[in-house]
Amino acid sequence: MDLTEIGEFGFIKRFANKFNSIIDNDKEMGIGDDCAIMPLNKTDSYVVTTDLLIEDIHFLKDKISPEALGHKSLAVSLSDIAAMGAEPRFSFLSLGLPSHFSVEYLDAFMNGYHALSQKYSTPLMGGDTTKSPDKLMINVVVVGQSKKTETRLRSMAKNGDLICVTGHLGDSAAGLQVVLNNLKPNTDTKYLERKHHHTEPRIHEGRWLAKQKLVHAMMDISDGISSDLMHILNASGLSALVHTEKLPISKTLQIVASKNNWNITELATAGGEDYELLFTVDEKDIDRLKLEYKACFSEEISVIGETKKGPSTITWLKNGNEMTNSKGGFNHFNNS
Amino acid sequence: MDLTEIGEFGFIKRFANKFNSIIDNDKEMGIGDDCAIMPLNKTDSYVVTTDLLIEDIHFLKDKISPEALGHKSLAVSLSDIAAMGAEPRFSFLSLGLPSHFSVEYLDAFMNGYHALSQKYSTPLMGGDTTKSPDKLMINVVVVGQSKKTETRLRSMAKNGDLICVTGHLGDSAAGLQVVLNNLKPNTDTKYLERKHHHTEPRIHEGRWLAKQKLVHAMMDISDGISSDLMHILNASGLSALVHTEKLPISKTLQIVASKNNWNITELATAGGEDYELLFTVDEKDIDRLKLEYKACFSEEISVIGETKKGPSTITWLKNGNEMTNSKGGFNHFNNS
Repeated sequence: MDLTEIGEFGFIKRFANKFNSIIDNDKEMGIGDDCAIMPLNKTDSYVVTTDLLIEDIHFLKDKISPEALGHKSLAVSLSDIAAMGAEPRFSFLSLGLPSHFSVEYLDAFMNGYHALSQKYSTPLMGGDTTKSPDKLMINVVVVGQSKKTETRLRSMAKNGDLICVTGHLGDSAAGLQVVLNNLKPNTDTKYLERKHHHTEPRIHEGRWLAKQKLVHAMMDISDGISSDLMHILNASGLSALVHTEKLPISKTLQIVASKNNWNITELATAGGEDYELLFTVDEKDIDRLKLEYKACFSEEISVIGETKKGPSTITWLKNGNEMTNSKGGFNHFNNS
Repeated sequence: MDLTEIGEFGFIKRFANKFNSIIDNDKEMGIGDDCAIMPLNKTDSYVVTTDLLIEDIHFLKDKISPEALGHKSLAVSLSDIAAMGAEPRFSFLSLGLPSHFSVEYLDAFMNGYHALSQKYSTPLMGGDTTKSPDKLMINVVVVGQSKKTETRLRSMAKNGDLICVTGHLGDSAAGLQVVLNNLKPNTDTKYLERKHHHTEPRIHEGRWLAKQKLVHAMMDISDGISSDLMHILNASGLSALVHTEKLPISKTLQIVASKNNWNITELATAGGEDYELLFTVDEKDIDRLKLEYKACFSEEISVIGETKKGPSTITWLKNGNEMTNSKGGFNHFNNS
């Protein structure tokens, strides 16, 4: 059987239970969330995430500066830590490097990595450096620390919760289009490209949201909400309505998408790499939450839908009317 | 500048201090040993190691069974845990997979991984699965747990210590030659091939040795003792004498090397992938240690040399006479 027939998540399902069944579920959590959980002490846990980035799959080496690549390699894992509501603590880096690789490139890469690791107090503790046949390969592991009472899982959504996101959706996917199509640099295209390459992990926002009792499930948006929201629905046994007219779209994306005839809804739901937080909230106190979040971060939380009882599917609405389904989330093995 | 000019360790030196300087040295340890150390509680620490294995660099996909590859991927990281004297606890696996990869191959790979993870109670807690342009890529992280008083570092060697190893040296490197040269399968060549592909991490031996107060520094042998012993000498500020006639060579290696005109000393000192333990011992009680080790594991500890004051170099002796230096350890960037 070919891996494309079952995809990434189909493959993981084949062995997840075999490992999860030998885990101490009181203190530990294995495959199935943004991070795994390892015991630390009575009040806190360690959370761990790992991400593999490969040249020509996750990045084009001549389209991203080495500093930005170093930054982004760490940022995508920090985003998983943010999604758990945890504080990043330590990081580990494995590099597969083609022969005759440039040391100056590596110095710049490490500078980008170091600057972000310093910003979020996540020192590089170790790793592995080895030869690669031709492509640059990067594996980053980040360990975070989280209060047990504040850890947020995908399985914590409740029926009737509002579905919310931080920031804007689709900017990063549009930034990738800017890069791939060599769009003329101007303020707008540069903004989108920066959103794609200079991912800012929502660490402070994740910590803040995790402290709010009315915030239930949380995860980060890496593949696009059409795929990522399904993880929350599957883990929590719920269905969802999403109002596409409420998706937070930046003015810049509106301008550039309109000029280039891009489908904004597709970019915002299935583009991927937003690295914003997707979370569900008890509807009772949403106004207070929105106000306090804005006071803290000078940004909006957007309510884009609500959860319902029923089988795990997303119903996409536009001004109250059901749409035919948007393109599915990014599956690494079905997009070749 | 080309990476081959400074090599893997030259590259690591360029950034290690920048990160190590922001680590809490009372409770944590960063770049520079087999594992990093993360705080756990008053008596124990977590130790963490990460290893990247890439097709055509670390393994030839048509020369190793998928089960053996799954086993070995975990085994090389478990060997680092053994080297710290720690108990393995959790593992994480990132896979980069070419499109249209066989699900049956992956099932067999995961079976090999699972069998070893079960043997050493090291469940897979999470990971990442993604597409790769053409090569299979595997990154494994293992977290172990170690009593603070029993953790063994490369820097703990003392002047006058005896230098010891577990098991035999060179079998794995010879096994690689068996595979590369398609040697005719017989009991001897199969034994060597198995030593190369079915690495057995020295977890129990590492735990046992770490409990012995007279055992000082310890590490695992991954690149060959000529390279690995240098790490202990550099970290401990010592020099060493190694008596090559005392290197533990299996009868099988002697037979196969003699038939094929292989240089046994080179295989045993610079071949790499032995995954035996290299450690230094206070000479006073070596006889008791050897006896008790043999009683426990039905195997020998071999004393191969001793540490001395002086600059970090290895003097290789044969029956008391100085040899010209054997080939250096395996450096991933100088063996292209």
